[in-house]
Amino acid sequence: MNFAVIGAGAWGTAMAIHLAKMQHTVTLVPRRFEQALALSSARENADYLPGVPLPPSLQIGHELVPVLMEAEVVLLACPAQALRETATRVKDALTLATQLKLVVSLAKGLELETHLRPAEVIAQVLPDVPVGSLTGPTNAAEVAQGLPAAMVLAANAPADLLEAVQVEISGASLRVYLSHDVAGAEFGGCLKNIYAIAAGICDGLKLGDNTSAAMLTRALAEMVRVGEALGAQRDTFYGLSGFGDLIATCHGEWSRNRQFGEQVGAGASIEEIMANRKTVVEGYKTAASFYGLCRDRGIEAPILAEVYQTLYEGKAPAQALRDLMLRELKRE
Amino acid sequence: MNFAVIGAGAWGTAMAIHLAKMQHTVTLVPRRFEQALALSSARENADYLPGVPLPPSLQIGHELVPVLMEAEVVLLACPAQALRETATRVKDALTLATQLKLVVSLAKGLELETHLRPAEVIAQVLPDVPVGSLTGPTNAAEVAQGLPAAMVLAANAPADLLEAVQVEISGASLRVYLSHDVAGAEFGGCLKNIYAIAAGICDGLKLGDNTSAAMLTRALAEMVRVGEALGAQRDTFYGLSGFGDLIATCHGEWSRNRQFGEQVGAGASIEEIMANRKTVVEGYKTAASFYGLCRDRGIEAPILAEVYQTLYEGKAPAQALRDLMLRELKRE
Repeated sequence: MNFAVIGAGAWGTAMAIHLAKMQHTVTLVPRRFEQALALSSARENADYLPGVPLPPSLQIGHELVPVLMEAEVVLLACPAQALRETATRVKDALTLATQLKLVVSLAKGLELETHLRPAEVIAQVLPDVPVGSLTGPTNAAEVAQGLPAAMVLAANAPADLLEAVQVEISGASLRVYLSHDVAGAEFGGCLKNIYAIAAGICDGLKLGDNTSAAMLTRALAEMVRVGEALGAQRDTFYGLSGFGDLIATCHGEWSRNRQFGEQVGAGASIEEIMANRKTVVEGYKTAASFYGLCRDRGIEAPILAEVYQTLYEGKAPAQALRDLMLRELKRE
Repeated sequence: MNFAVIGAGAWGTAMAIHLAKMQHTVTLVPRRFEQALALSSARENADYLPGVPLPPSLQIGHELVPVLMEAEVVLLACPAQALRETATRVKDALTLATQLKLVVSLAKGLELETHLRPAEVIAQVLPDVPVGSLTGPTNAAEVAQGLPAAMVLAANAPADLLEAVQVEISGASLRVYLSHDVAGAEFGGCLKNIYAIAAGICDGLKLGDNTSAAMLTRALAEMVRVGEALGAQRDTFYGLSGFGDLIATCHGEWSRNRQFGEQVGAGASIEEIMANRKTVVEGYKTAASFYGLCRDRGIEAPILAEVYQTLYEGKAPAQALRDLMLRELKRE
């Protein structure tokens, strides 16, 4: 199958490497021309995935028109806030000769102004193409190294198309499961970034594993409640795209969202942290977007609210945690 | 309220310290006389909870008869395989003057021969006393230090009694929630020890966080399926005693079950590991007991079966993991 991966951060690069190793025709298209040049000459993504050589068959592209003439599946591997612009670039580069069958989002965040999920943003821009979302617990470096992983491809698309793509993406090390609950899969991916920040705040405050586990137990319940209120299916949150991604992100030392939360919990200034990062912390903006969405819809989400107040309204992290823990005794 | 804690491992000692700090009358009763003497003179449990001073008001006991004359709530803090004997010692020491209102298990394991849960074992020995189980994500050292934690008291006992005990145990740092699903709370505590071994095996094999998260996602589903088949309530497993304890145990560097699994995954001999431990790895024997229980009842539990075969039948850990991961592609 012919794949194009638009965006060459850690995750887009890792997926491109995985697909190229599976003997597919794959073109990785970095956003900037200089980045395309650097990847082409070094055959390595030194900025985002250092130490992992690009397979010889993996092509690096820059102009979208020729790439999209042959691509059957396009993966959009950019931050959530860049998704609309990236999808628009894809739309503008499509020609009549297109082979495009499916556009897949790798993003995990809501659009700030509209509160739309990744697949919804893409569908607005590209209404005539089936759209899906690939999500789950997938640390990019581990996938690039070929360590075992499992993920979910959620899409509302013809079953034969999805099953074909599933088989093409899956290999001995990477198992892909299918789901029709795109909303649940995407809400899980977005919310876990916010709860990973909360788990990081617990760590930064040095409150220990018991506190973190108690908070995450509530987070899972909140994820289910918020997701159901927004039309997703309950069981999706107990699967790879919800629980699985939550446990990986909150555990993994590599998680940007957890790390960011830990710095916040330890008392660092949010402005300074953001100024010194070169990678995007999806949970930061998604917390604002999800908070707005829940407020608009009247959905109760206490952990989300405390994270929002800590990140945007100057609430002290220790006070936010105290307010979460000190609730009336009741049956669980 | 007057509490007796029978058994002075890390967790029994931590709960005794917590209750004494709450201004209750608390007697901690170690199993061995020498241990009682050592705790009395050092005012510290140097073997199992070093570095945490015992509060001055905490009494150390040895003879059960006088302790049990005044105790209103007795916590049994011993390994699951010692529970029947410990409950029998309590029974034999009870006099007509007893004030005993509730016996609470702190154990997390099934009895090897009978496959009975802790509360069931106690109820067999002490049929005339209400029995409960205190469980959830509670690393002993953190509770002893007064770091925030939340747990579940599950019991079939009069509501006013349970609510009174809940209020007496709960403090600013330790929140106790009530549940009537004793089976669910106890199965969660038992199973998470087995899955923590599986998570440790992933770590020992250096398979990364994605593998571990994928395995734990299946473990949660298996926990629910096994628990429901055995009469527990589904939602209990998504709470503190299931998900919460699972995430804490699989995350915490301190977890004995996870550590044990990590050694097994790294290729150490099980006999040698067990010979060199002075603390009990509950999941080791509980894996055998739960495996027998599921076999007898015809309940499918692939992760449990792979852990059992690795621990008891010499199956290579890498092969067990491979067999778990390599399943037919399907909807999640």
